[in-house]
Amino acid sequence: MLRSCTAGLRSLWALRGRREGAARLSADLQPARRLFSTEKAVHKDWALPNPSWSKDLKLLFDQFMKKCEDGSWERLPSCKHTCTYKSEDFKTYFLDPQLVEGEGLSQAQLFTRGFEDGLGFEYVIFNNNDEKRTVCLFQGGPYLQGIPGFLHGGAIATMIDVAFGSCAAISGGAVMTANLNINFKRPVPLCSVVVIHSQLDKLEGRKLFVSCNVRSVDEKTLYSEATGLFIKLDPKKSST
Amino acid sequence: MLRSCTAGLRSLWALRGRREGAARLSADLQPARRLFSTEKAVHKDWALPNPSWSKDLKLLFDQFMKKCEDGSWERLPSCKHTCTYKSEDFKTYFLDPQLVEGEGLSQAQLFTRGFEDGLGFEYVIFNNNDEKRTVCLFQGGPYLQGIPGFLHGGAIATMIDVAFGSCAAISGGAVMTANLNINFKRPVPLCSVVVIHSQLDKLEGRKLFVSCNVRSVDEKTLYSEATGLFIKLDPKKSST
Repeated sequence: MLRSCTAGLRSLWALRGRREGAARLSADLQPARRLFSTEKAVHKDWALPNPSWSKDLKLLFDQFMKKCEDGSWERLPSCKHTCTYKSEDFKTYFLDPQLVEGEGLSQAQLFTRGFEDGLGFEYVIFNNNDEKRTVCLFQGGPYLQGIPGFLHGGAIATMIDVAFGSCAAISGGAVMTANLNINFKRPVPLCSVVVIHSQLDKLEGRKLFVSCNVRSVDEKTLYSEATGLFIKLDPKKSST
Repeated sequence: MLRSCTAGLRSLWALRGRREGAARLSADLQPARRLFSTEKAVHKDWALPNPSWSKDLKLLFDQFMKKCEDGSWERLPSCKHTCTYKSEDFKTYFLDPQLVEGEGLSQAQLFTRGFEDGLGFEYVIFNNNDEKRTVCLFQGGPYLQGIPGFLHGGAIATMIDVAFGSCAAISGGAVMTANLNINFKRPVPLCSVVVIHSQLDKLEGRKLFVSCNVRSVDEKTLYSEATGLFIKLDPKKSST
């Protein structure tokens, strides 16, 4: 729903700052950094190979790392934040967010990084800033099952949301999902690897329109297609 | 993506059979039962209160259990299947399902029931057969976090898919998600309870059109609205 990983966002903002100059970095990033600040953060980067990664996933990862060498692509790091969230700034984005302060929140983990290696979402996202697109390599583990033998549609929707969020954040900074429209063409076999190609199609004021397709590693099988609408959060609101 | 819990489906099919007569039951259920058969099944019903349920969730649960007394509503049981799936029948629904047979599959768990009590998806679905609608009571735990303090959009999409699937299955039996279109209006606070009201809007051949809204317990806050298209799986295909 919201591009939520501090490390990933910082990487994107740092990239924008490098390319767009220090003035832009300063104007956009101060509120966003406060917005996503946490008291306790786990800084391990989870978007790197681990022993659960299949041969397909490792091979694709290596191919994209190769593409990163000339700077046209960049791998986005990914954290599993286990923060106790206290940011007052975030509340200003919503009229009545009813933030829950309790025991449960202290156990909070990013949904897509809360599983043990290989059991849930194994993924890495690569970003091409010039082409305004991302590629997400995703291996869905056995704890993401829907119908036996296949991924749950909600797990696919989740990864599409994450991939879209990364794509929109390239141009939008801190963004929030307003709409997800997903066509499920074929079920995705459990434990297989799929590739989610996302593209920023249009930018209208604070609205970012994105689209994606979910394909097999050999690109022959189209599993899903989707469009998304993201809203750039207004930094002015967070500084009030 | 696919209404996947054996126990839940059996309950729905049994309900249909009871109301529509034994002939219909026999014609519809034989393929479906083969489709969802598992070698090893865990039969515990997870759609019942546990110590992690909040006061709000327990209160709503009690209210709907009261509504079940006259038979107008029915609570749908829910299982966490840990099966090693061997059904050949399911393959006939897809041209090339590429079922993965490996170590990973033996660990398979239903996505929405794979978390420890209170950490992930806590939910129960009630069905009103005459009105073709369902109500899903959902408490999203700390492992479903997106932006700190709020549920991940993918977790909401997942529960909408599950709620839709149950609603479509009332009339459709074994169904599969073809489209999900979700408007996210406001972020859902982590560990809070929301109510997903789903409705079957239209039935056209094998197509089932559903819609829902996601609201706070007091119904004052609208978090999301969505529509869905489900396809009834053709029993003839599974019997070839």
